[in-house]
Amino acid sequence: MTDLVLLGHGGGGELTRRLIADHILPRFANPALDPLTDGAVLANPGGRLCVTTDASVVTPLNFPGGCIGRLAVCGTVNDLAVMGARPLALTLSLIIEEGLPFAELDRQLDAAAAAAREAGVPIVTGDTKVVERRRGDGLLISTAGVGVLADGVELSPRRVRAGDAVLVSGRIAEHGLAVMACREGLAFKTPVVSDVAPVLRLCAALLTLGAELRFMRDPTRGGIAGVAADLAEDGAVGVELDERAIPISPACRHAAELLGLDPLAVANEGKLVAVVAGAAAERALALLRADPLGRDAAIIGRITAATPPLAELKTTAGGRRIVQRPHGEELPRIC
Amino acid sequence: MTDLVLLGHGGGGELTRRLIADHILPRFANPALDPLTDGAVLANPGGRLCVTTDASVVTPLNFPGGCIGRLAVCGTVNDLAVMGARPLALTLSLIIEEGLPFAELDRQLDAAAAAAREAGVPIVTGDTKVVERRRGDGLLISTAGVGVLADGVELSPRRVRAGDAVLVSGRIAEHGLAVMACREGLAFKTPVVSDVAPVLRLCAALLTLGAELRFMRDPTRGGIAGVAADLAEDGAVGVELDERAIPISPACRHAAELLGLDPLAVANEGKLVAVVAGAAAERALALLRADPLGRDAAIIGRITAATPPLAELKTTAGGRRIVQRPHGEELPRIC
Repeated sequence: MTDLVLLGHGGGGELTRRLIADHILPRFANPALDPLTDGAVLANPGGRLCVTTDASVVTPLNFPGGCIGRLAVCGTVNDLAVMGARPLALTLSLIIEEGLPFAELDRQLDAAAAAAREAGVPIVTGDTKVVERRRGDGLLISTAGVGVLADGVELSPRRVRAGDAVLVSGRIAEHGLAVMACREGLAFKTPVVSDVAPVLRLCAALLTLGAELRFMRDPTRGGIAGVAADLAEDGAVGVELDERAIPISPACRHAAELLGLDPLAVANEGKLVAVVAGAAAERALALLRADPLGRDAAIIGRITAATPPLAELKTTAGGRRIVQRPHGEELPRIC
Repeated sequence: MTDLVLLGHGGGGELTRRLIADHILPRFANPALDPLTDGAVLANPGGRLCVTTDASVVTPLNFPGGCIGRLAVCGTVNDLAVMGARPLALTLSLIIEEGLPFAELDRQLDAAAAAAREAGVPIVTGDTKVVERRRGDGLLISTAGVGVLADGVELSPRRVRAGDAVLVSGRIAEHGLAVMACREGLAFKTPVVSDVAPVLRLCAALLTLGAELRFMRDPTRGGIAGVAADLAEDGAVGVELDERAIPISPACRHAAELLGLDPLAVANEGKLVAVVAGAAAERALALLRADPLGRDAAIIGRITAATPPLAELKTTAGGRRIVQRPHGEELPRIC
């Protein structure tokens, strides 16, 4: 067996079968993953089904705090979790560049398997294709997830109303800045490390608030700014954020300045933004802070009845500025 | 709005939102596809859940008889269908190369939407990422599908037994040869055209045979040879195919010779291979032939108790040869 992935490994013949048998099945064997069928069969626990998908095209494949394998799994787990769903299963679709060392593929598969175990969600089926060598980025991963939504769970921007509180589960901008710093070859005295992690436990904690929990979102591409802008537009409400309340590490603040980026617009991969009834704000904060992943959680703003609906930031300097979705070119291939 | 997809369209900001609003939502709007959440919510009809995923990396994007958008949808619908499942929903994960004209993206999205309608399976959620321009292949698509399996449906190589009959639903090798011919710039007097299509109706017809239907598979990468070899190995049975019985068009036979390919090893994207009880062979054939997609269906072989378990071909010349999985390098990026 060669030590590099070859085009033939994607041909669907003997080489593909060996790749699956030697590299994939040993890591992901579970009752649902039956290599003899075209997919996986799962028990059905009832409840509305949630389906989501995500592609991971991050480059480089490995960055401080994580890698594409971990990112792919956490991203889809988190998408289901912030919908209020209990994830049942994940799929893993690999597009490998010819020339990727098998050692690298194995490392990413190990990371994906470990993230799935950490989240308690099995990867039940997958697919492997190989494309010609190009830039040597090596690997693209698409994941899909299926989950179930319990009766009565209705999280949506439409449920948000004036007087509600906006919370974030911890320090912002870590993932995007870690990847950008790594890409630019920047090293900081205090390293900037991706926060990539499953936020399932945090979501489960907030769901105990029942109807007082209005909305959750994971602030990935587009960051906090993107979530706030979407919330204002989709919920037809005003969103007022307090810059002094938004948690960010000194290292990230410094890295963002150096890279010329607005931390509010930088991707997070192990955080959630939640909107809860005003009266539940302190309880929500306590629930988040009770979890290690939520130790730096903070109430960062409130919902208003402002028209036209806008997201605004009360700045540290004492002014106000509109929070917009970033345009898009600033952070390519972060996720 | 530019006429080319830019890196910024994958940034998760304003450009991404516009791409989704202008190009994706108008084509795929349906009750489950709620742009305000991270995924889609579906009613749960009960029954075991089936999950499958597939990536489409075919190049060129457009080929006689189809294109990547159609291929991606049909591939996943067919994977669920041959498991005996009723498909509920599909996901669509797009990885676009910077520089792809929006007109091309729209064409592929139209094709995907049309294939989904043809199959009667909605695309309920998706994701869009953009990567740097490379070879100009332009587009990679990963799809995942969720379906439900009715009680009592158990299709598996393990159910196959000596005396069973092997059928194929129509003429073989059309998809792979169409793509290869297109790639090599070959044009035939009678064009070779991909068979890419959803085989749901054919599967539903065969499922009426109840327990007499043992196994189904869509012979994509690896072709009929791959399915036969897998069947022999996974079912621990002998598979004996009759070359004279295997339907293939004269144009495909000619194209395969010219390209130096074994038609048995070439991908099909609108066909199924089925194993049924020997006594049900003629009824199965009639069920397939009653459908336009199955008009050239044929009984192409039988299952034996041969040991060691092998797939063999009785050749037109009167000899016998072992049918092996193709190694893998012959047909890159066909699917």
